[in-house]
Amino acid sequence: MKNKNELLLLLTDRWCDWEAGYAIAVANSFSDYTVKTIAMDKSPKKSMGGIRAEVDYIVGDYQNFEELAMIIIPGGLSWEENDYEELAEFVRLAVKENIPIAAICGATLFLCRHGFLDQVKHTGDSLELFQSQKNYHGEALYVPAQVVVDGGIITANETAAVEFAYRIFQILEVDSEEEIDEWYDKFQKGAIR
Amino acid sequence: MKNKNELLLLLTDRWCDWEAGYAIAVANSFSDYTVKTIAMDKSPKKSMGGIRAEVDYIVGDYQNFEELAMIIIPGGLSWEENDYEELAEFVRLAVKENIPIAAICGATLFLCRHGFLDQVKHTGDSLELFQSQKNYHGEALYVPAQVVVDGGIITANETAAVEFAYRIFQILEVDSEEEIDEWYDKFQKGAIR
Repeated sequence: MKNKNELLLLLTDRWCDWEAGYAIAVANSFSDYTVKTIAMDKSPKKSMGGIRAEVDYIVGDYQNFEELAMIIIPGGLSWEENDYEELAEFVRLAVKENIPIAAICGATLFLCRHGFLDQVKHTGDSLELFQSQKNYHGEALYVPAQVVVDGGIITANETAAVEFAYRIFQILEVDSEEEIDEWYDKFQKGAIR
Repeated sequence: MKNKNELLLLLTDRWCDWEAGYAIAVANSFSDYTVKTIAMDKSPKKSMGGIRAEVDYIVGDYQNFEELAMIIIPGGLSWEENDYEELAEFVRLAVKENIPIAAICGATLFLCRHGFLDQVKHTGDSLELFQSQKNYHGEALYVPAQVVVDGGIITANETAAVEFAYRIFQILEVDSEEEIDEWYDKFQKGAIR
């Protein structure tokens, strides 16, 4: 990962504020990675929460794949009614370069529509993920999952922003294994203390 | 609350992406409230996660107190080394108008420094909150708390973004009590499923 220091946050209209929030804040502020925003065009992309985020790159121009470590795609309120073929084309280029893709909530629907997901492993829609496991007869079972990691693709439910970040930190090696586990325990326990 | 539809998100340099994320996304997208950003000046405020957020209002010019329902202040990495006296002056004006203030993590330190917190009720620093309770001898005990609500002030720890949102939703009445409870259960359970 040494020479790959760029992380892209793919923004769309009404992107969801909380879903990638933990992942980008920790990676950008407490590791060697730098987060940049990318979108279809240069006009600021307003979040569900009313944040008008400026755009660093547009998908049609992006060339920096050799420094790109991951594309993170938050959900939001515009995935259902848009195909976003141009964004899918960009993700296709990245997948060809073996760049991991992390998608949460509505963004998993987008990946599914464009054929990026192994349907056996990432079953379900943006509201409920399932993970396949085999029982002792060798039959596939589908177990509800909050996050599924399969090869270069991470998918997560909207309620699993902390676990989504945790899996991203493991893949990016933002810190030692122990530090990452400690972060996860603290934020998961924070929820229920 | 009918005529008070504006929520302000007070942004500072390296504001924390996840801390107010749930609160602003739900309130702005699924209720009659509208979130606007406010800061010391008009230059975009970059989050810990690298989001350059545009600024709707500057604190010195803000006049719209009669429509203002709450000020939400995320933590971030610039609260410790800055006094932000101008921001405190603005919060003082709002408190005089009985507008609730919700602060999380580093922003609680800011409120504390400027004398906004009842020290008995919001003990501790930005890393650990305590809530006072009386034992049966009438002595005050300090119990660790994730969120403290006291009159018009809500303070929360950095790991308690979901509970912070929940308390904000209750005060703002963004939905029915049942719907708000259901949201909270879903997101708290999401963390541990």
